Amino acid sequence: MSSDTLPVVRLTPKANARAIRRGFPWIYANELVLDRRTKGLAPGTIAVLEDGERKPVGLVGVTPASKIAGRMLERDTEIEIGRDWLVAKLTRALELRERLFATPYYRLVHAEADGLPGVIIDRFGDTCVVQPNAAWAEALLPELTEALAEVTGVVNILKNAGSRGRQLEGLDDADAVLLGAAPEAPLPVEMNGATYMADLTGGQKTGLFYDQRPNHAFAARLAQGQRVLDVFSHVGGFALAALAGGATEALSVDGSAPALALAEDGASRMGAAERFATRQGDAFNTLTALGEEGERFGLVICDPPAFAPAKPALEAGLRAYEKVARFSAPLVEEGCYLVLCSCSHAADLSSFTGACLRGIGRAGRRAQLIHTGFAGPDHPLMPQLAESGYLKALVFRL
Amino acid sequence: MSSDTLPVVRLTPKANARAIRRGFPWIYANELVLDRRTKGLAPGTIAVLEDGERKPVGLVGVTPASKIAGRMLERDTEIEIGRDWLVAKLTRALELRERLFATPYYRLVHAEADGLPGVIIDRFGDTCVVQPNAAWAEALLPELTEALAEVTGVVNILKNAGSRGRQLEGLDDADAVLLGAAPEAPLPVEMNGATYMADLTGGQKTGLFYDQRPNHAFAARLAQGQRVLDVFSHVGGFALAALAGGATEALSVDGSAPALALAEDGASRMGAAERFATRQGDAFNTLTALGEEGERFGLVICDPPAFAPAKPALEAGLRAYEKVARFSAPLVEEGCYLVLCSCSHAADLSSFTGACLRGIGRAGRRAQLIHTGFAGPDHPLMPQLAESGYLKALVFRL
Repeated sequence: MSSDTLPVVRLTPKANARAIRRGFPWIYANELVLDRRTKGLAPGTIAVLEDGERKPVGLVGVTPASKIAGRMLERDTEIEIGRDWLVAKLTRALELRERLFATPYYRLVHAEADGLPGVIIDRFGDTCVVQPNAAWAEALLPELTEALAEVTGVVNILKNAGSRGRQLEGLDDADAVLLGAAPEAPLPVEMNGATYMADLTGGQKTGLFYDQRPNHAFAARLAQGQRVLDVFSHVGGFALAALAGGATEALSVDGSAPALALAEDGASRMGAAERFATRQGDAFNTLTALGEEGERFGLVICDPPAFAPAKPALEAGLRAYEKVARFSAPLVEEGCYLVLCSCSHAADLSSFTGACLRGIGRAGRRAQLIHTGFAGPDHPLMPQLAESGYLKALVFRL
Repeated sequence: MSSDTLPVVRLTPKANARAIRRGFPWIYANELVLDRRTKGLAPGTIAVLEDGERKPVGLVGVTPASKIAGRMLERDTEIEIGRDWLVAKLTRALELRERLFATPYYRLVHAEADGLPGVIIDRFGDTCVVQPNAAWAEALLPELTEALAEVTGVVNILKNAGSRGRQLEGLDDADAVLLGAAPEAPLPVEMNGATYMADLTGGQKTGLFYDQRPNHAFAARLAQGQRVLDVFSHVGGFALAALAGGATEALSVDGSAPALALAEDGASRMGAAERFATRQGDAFNTLTALGEEGERFGLVICDPPAFAPAKPALEAGLRAYEKVARFSAPLVEEGCYLVLCSCSHAADLSSFTGACLRGIGRAGRRAQLIHTGFAGPDHPLMPQLAESGYLKALVFRL
């Protein structure tokens, strides 16, 4: 399909055409002329975007009913958005990951920053899990599946449709097997010397979070000879890395019994089951209980869910982060280590750090900040999208 | 000496007593009652700091003529600031470094963040280089030397008096040997698989910068099979790490011939001399010349000196960072990597990132940001001092 035959959509006078030309990848609904013709486009239609003077800006995926009405796919309007284009984007994404990682376990595509707006692909060996969170990608899913198999050689491709982003794009939440088969059991994944069990079909998101990998590695450097507490542990992200790093024992706390069972399975496969324990329950109650029991640890990690996913929740979210710091700091031995994480888009590094320091201060402790970590390099950022820098990990010594 | 016999200094009504009680470590000249008695104190005198209501706040090192007239040493006014106190601080600092590093090559004391305001100590095996950049530490130098030898077992302790901070404290710039002897030749230091030559007496600062260690390591992960250009290379920080990481060749550019000679020495000891080249000269001229020669690299690193060391230089500094990005981006092959660093206190992460993106954009390139790094964990931060987070390394893919 040449661009001559593509529908044309147009920027409103309100639109920040300069930012869009400079690389900002989203066209908001009020920046697009939503006449009857444009409103009638099927969600995910590829269209030529023009500015107010009818000059082409690029090719966009249009979702007329979404707040993000257009997503910039390609500046060159002569290029066809199809299988070859997808192959090129995936090849480029793969090059970076193969350079960074010795084994094929990583986030292969991190949406806008990898040139595939709204598309997340995590790779677990010969299986990929795709989250097509934008309508253009849903429409091109057969081509994306083919391209992905061709570029990576994976034999199983699963679709995970659980993301909130799909609702905003008017997409359904039906998971599917796009190629091959879903694994029948959780898959073992080796990272930082630890073994994690990834449940690709029953779990949260794609079953395992790769983003914390460098922060797990940093925490593991502090774990030698320490008792370790990992709160909001999920499948044991920090706890198992700490065991691999020489922790004398590790305790994982999480609300989810299935997640803790996967953590226990991982610890067993590492031959570390006797150094590993779990407690299922509310994090704050458990932190309080551990404090009352007089427990103290050489390394405490709290990696809670996003308390401030968006701006309206920011104040309450920051109070929740402060509370995490206040409840966890008393459990850290003097001179030892506290890792506090946030995966909230809305809480920037400075606000999050402030909340942590207030909490630590209210617990009567003082802190050095020895490390600030972000998501790993398989989660690149599009610099124009501040929203993409969501993960922060602060390592304090108290 | 008990606190009863110490002189007393007092906060003015203007002083931010709350911030100081909460951990801010500096008392500015306008926050201290500078009556004749206080003005008459010898620089570096240990005194009891009281608030306006004569309640003790802590023990401070006083330098009446400095803009930072007091440095908080200890909250507990009953503690004696002497050899035992220094031993405790150094022991605590050493514990962190021994946990983090397998060999004794690191920044042992990073000033305020390690509880020793104004004191920098770098360790190179059995030799330490001390920068006593505050008058209290200069006054206690014999005790500090003894404590350092006791805690670490080092046999050589050198004093480096070249810091600008010493001038502000009214201290001289005379280097000295405090214990043992100065090494007769540059010392080899192993980091990230590379060998660096540290010239502890003739070099800049303490001869080698440990702060970039994790950023060197990250860049080395991108170096396999690449041609690498390291601009403002000093003794080869990024270039030699890249060679250790499998670069096919590396070119170091620096204005200093002695620094480049040390880099060449390091490359020889690594058995990588035939993959290593140097060019002495101005960075911008050399970048321009390389562009004209049609040279392209898979990894380009620019780690310039502080272009914006303080606020008045911020605008000019950001323009200089933009220029570095604009001159270096054209030398990066499509799909390859550019590492841009800033060690400017005044340029925060967001301003520095903006300057880099403007420069990359003006060079007609687009970028993913794949990694943001700071100084290594042997350079902890005191969270109350924003100034202490000076080093930023941004890794872009173009």
